[in-house]
Amino acid sequence: MSKAITFYFDFSSPYGYIAAEVIERFARANGANVAWRPFLLGPVFKETGARPLVEQPLKGPYSGRDIARSAVFYNVPFKMPTRFPMNGLLAARAFYWLAAHDAARAVPFAQAVYRAYFQRDQDITAPEVIGKIAANLGADVAALGAGAQDQAIKDRLRQTCDEAIARGVFGSPFFFIDDEPFWGVDRLPMMEKWLTTGGWKY
Amino acid sequence: MSKAITFYFDFSSPYGYIAAEVIERFARANGANVAWRPFLLGPVFKETGARPLVEQPLKGPYSGRDIARSAVFYNVPFKMPTRFPMNGLLAARAFYWLAAHDAARAVPFAQAVYRAYFQRDQDITAPEVIGKIAANLGADVAALGAGAQDQAIKDRLRQTCDEAIARGVFGSPFFFIDDEPFWGVDRLPMMEKWLTTGGWKY
Repeated sequence: MSKAITFYFDFSSPYGYIAAEVIERFARANGANVAWRPFLLGPVFKETGARPLVEQPLKGPYSGRDIARSAVFYNVPFKMPTRFPMNGLLAARAFYWLAAHDAARAVPFAQAVYRAYFQRDQDITAPEVIGKIAANLGADVAALGAGAQDQAIKDRLRQTCDEAIARGVFGSPFFFIDDEPFWGVDRLPMMEKWLTTGGWKY
Repeated sequence: MSKAITFYFDFSSPYGYIAAEVIERFARANGANVAWRPFLLGPVFKETGARPLVEQPLKGPYSGRDIARSAVFYNVPFKMPTRFPMNGLLAARAFYWLAAHDAARAVPFAQAVYRAYFQRDQDITAPEVIGKIAANLGADVAALGAGAQDQAIKDRLRQTCDEAIARGVFGSPFFFIDDEPFWGVDRLPMMEKWLTTGGWKY
């Protein structure tokens, strides 16, 4: 039976973007499936009192370097956006509308949103940018634009944020293998060992 | 020419302990030398406003798991100390006295202090514990006990802390390859690529 990776990410997270570029290949190589779960770090930071990484003294400048350096390490194109961070609300709602109504396009949409932001410096809070990304994938843009404002979709995102906090998610990317939590794209080697050995007691 | 890794660590840091168990083998495998630099995270946290990892909401409980899990991943014996964190001041001063007067014993001493704390739950703030560790290595314990209080040794540690902050160190372990900063034992794969390729622009 294929193992389940749950992948929580915020569309404004550079390490989340890197993870989004590599996680599907990683999962295939290790006999796992990935459930993509965009969420919003804002409510989580409110809960934890944390500040965005890049705003922290010492850690911020280091992170700026480490993000760009990590992109090269993981062989992922990357350009730090001029507007950062950005609110991933609209993109996340559009993702959940697609997941509900046009499921095959949801993951490619998430990847395309990340590329628009972290490769081409586009404004992913703009409905026309999100619409164009969806159109390029062949989605029904009119239905998506209206549907992303459905209460059910708004609720779906809010529930995902609540669920993330309840599961102890405090950053992006954040993975679970079944119920085992892994924070950060740098945990992929450990996740690989976890998947291939069946995990270990500690 | 051998490459230079500078290894900053706090004696109270569990990830620093894991790094101390693996860094020499890592360096040898990659044609590098390691300069060990114990420092104190306290003054750094004062500078950055950061709190110890384990005290942070959500991140704290996760870190407790990740530390124990990482120890297994890196194949390093580990038992979370009952008294945590502990002040590494005395151990760090003893290290710098050894580095100045009995250099060959300094690194084995640092490793032994870490093992006393993270394998056997010993009180590494106690002069008799530090003395016994030094004695087991064949060091001159009387000279060490007196010398660790020399103003020159106190200054050496203070300078190392100042230097760490000036170089942007904000956590433990923290490595430099020449002037390239790497935070965390989880950066070893990237450091390996950096060492073997000569680094990359980003």
